[in-house]
Amino acid sequence: MTGRHAREIISASNSVMKVFRRALDEGVTREGWLAVEGPFLVEEALAATERAVVHSVLVSRTAAEKFRDLLGRLPREAEVVQVSDRLFGQVAQTQSPQGIAALIELRPDNLESALSRRDALLLVACGLQDPGNLGTMMRSAQALGATALITLENTVSPFNPKAVRASAGTVFHLPMFCNQAPSTLFARLRAAGVQIVATDRHSPSSLAQADLHGPMAILIGQEAAGLPPDISREASLLLSIPIRVGTDSVNAAAAASIFLYEAARQRQFRY
Amino acid sequence: MTGRHAREIISASNSVMKVFRRALDEGVTREGWLAVEGPFLVEEALAATERAVVHSVLVSRTAAEKFRDLLGRLPREAEVVQVSDRLFGQVAQTQSPQGIAALIELRPDNLESALSRRDALLLVACGLQDPGNLGTMMRSAQALGATALITLENTVSPFNPKAVRASAGTVFHLPMFCNQAPSTLFARLRAAGVQIVATDRHSPSSLAQADLHGPMAILIGQEAAGLPPDISREASLLLSIPIRVGTDSVNAAAAASIFLYEAARQRQFRY
Repeated sequence: MTGRHAREIISASNSVMKVFRRALDEGVTREGWLAVEGPFLVEEALAATERAVVHSVLVSRTAAEKFRDLLGRLPREAEVVQVSDRLFGQVAQTQSPQGIAALIELRPDNLESALSRRDALLLVACGLQDPGNLGTMMRSAQALGATALITLENTVSPFNPKAVRASAGTVFHLPMFCNQAPSTLFARLRAAGVQIVATDRHSPSSLAQADLHGPMAILIGQEAAGLPPDISREASLLLSIPIRVGTDSVNAAAAASIFLYEAARQRQFRY
Repeated sequence: MTGRHAREIISASNSVMKVFRRALDEGVTREGWLAVEGPFLVEEALAATERAVVHSVLVSRTAAEKFRDLLGRLPREAEVVQVSDRLFGQVAQTQSPQGIAALIELRPDNLESALSRRDALLLVACGLQDPGNLGTMMRSAQALGATALITLENTVSPFNPKAVRASAGTVFHLPMFCNQAPSTLFARLRAAGVQIVATDRHSPSSLAQADLHGPMAILIGQEAAGLPPDISREASLLLSIPIRVGTDSVNAAAAASIFLYEAARQRQFRY
């Protein structure tokens, strides 16, 4: 029992089951709502009152008892559907299902206002393919004070289930603008007075010595190939991270984390 | 043809095939030799002339043509075994096999001399379970000037195939000391005059303001739980990374990368 009116479903062929199964597999519903599993992510969505709306929750009988408090804090409008533990297991995509899943709408963020912030610190993922890497970047972005994440076309989606898990719930808090066309985006960044910076291991300017104050967009390239030349030439500032001779580079999420840390250090973030 | 005497095997039941199949699955042979796939990792092993010895190479017929130059640079003593592309596919563990695999011995490093370096910057992985995370840390460690990686007991092996891939070849270059008993290790660190530091988000001392010169060991905790109390109390210095209120932390490999970057910045690494 969930302590509220929960619809109970007893057949795997029910349409709600089908919607959840498909959404948990793909990460999003047809409406673009995010599909997540586990109490931690549902809690994070509830905490993001400004951005996230929990529409539907699927819960196993055992989990309905265990997460009674969480279910009691759902918005009145949220649909709660209870199923047997066995049926939940058929829908879950995680290895150790925790018996709770949800469909969550993220309110769209406003790119114009994100670009016009005087403290704008934008992370631009340019072609990343590994969802775990993108999720780790999202987590660092939110923790280290980035004001938004932007992904270019042909970049893995932040709503990919692996990205959502690696993001540790920050997907609900960090403003995001996905699938941007490079030429349009870079024109808008410049028009808004946002400096575009990128890492380049051959640059004589080092990250630590550069001035990272002011509105700024940091370009992070693809895992193996890095930034394609037609993207990196959009940057007005190329900065090197101190890398040992004979080593290639650090992982994309590690580079993003270092960049954001250095910006936070210079800007003297005090939370 | 490999341009050198290559033994040719035509049966999957051959003992060489069995050794490779098992080693590629587990990451190491019974002798403790590392098993790797792909020309990139074999090249990295050859480049690490001081540390790595290539003992055996398994190559598919197609790859023997393609990597003729690489095979020509193998040490004389290395055994080269050629198989059909089909047989190679049965042994390979990667999704898109590149037709070359190798068994590589890593010469043991000397912990005493690693601890006595005046520029010692040691990364200590305390309980990490995700091999991709550990590999990313190894890559950052080598790139950002760490002098060695140490893993405590109950930590994933740096020789785990996923760790080796994420390490981007640094597994052959970075001195490593695995599976250390905490009490012995911490006693040796102290005896050698190595300062033990850890991150703690509640510490009033910030990473950026701390003095990171001198021999130092950085403790990195487990992904979810962080450092257990009995480990973090071994640290004589607890430092905070500036983290936004309401966010939990950054990923373990991201934290390690930020720590190493800050040490490199202060020590003014110039490579």
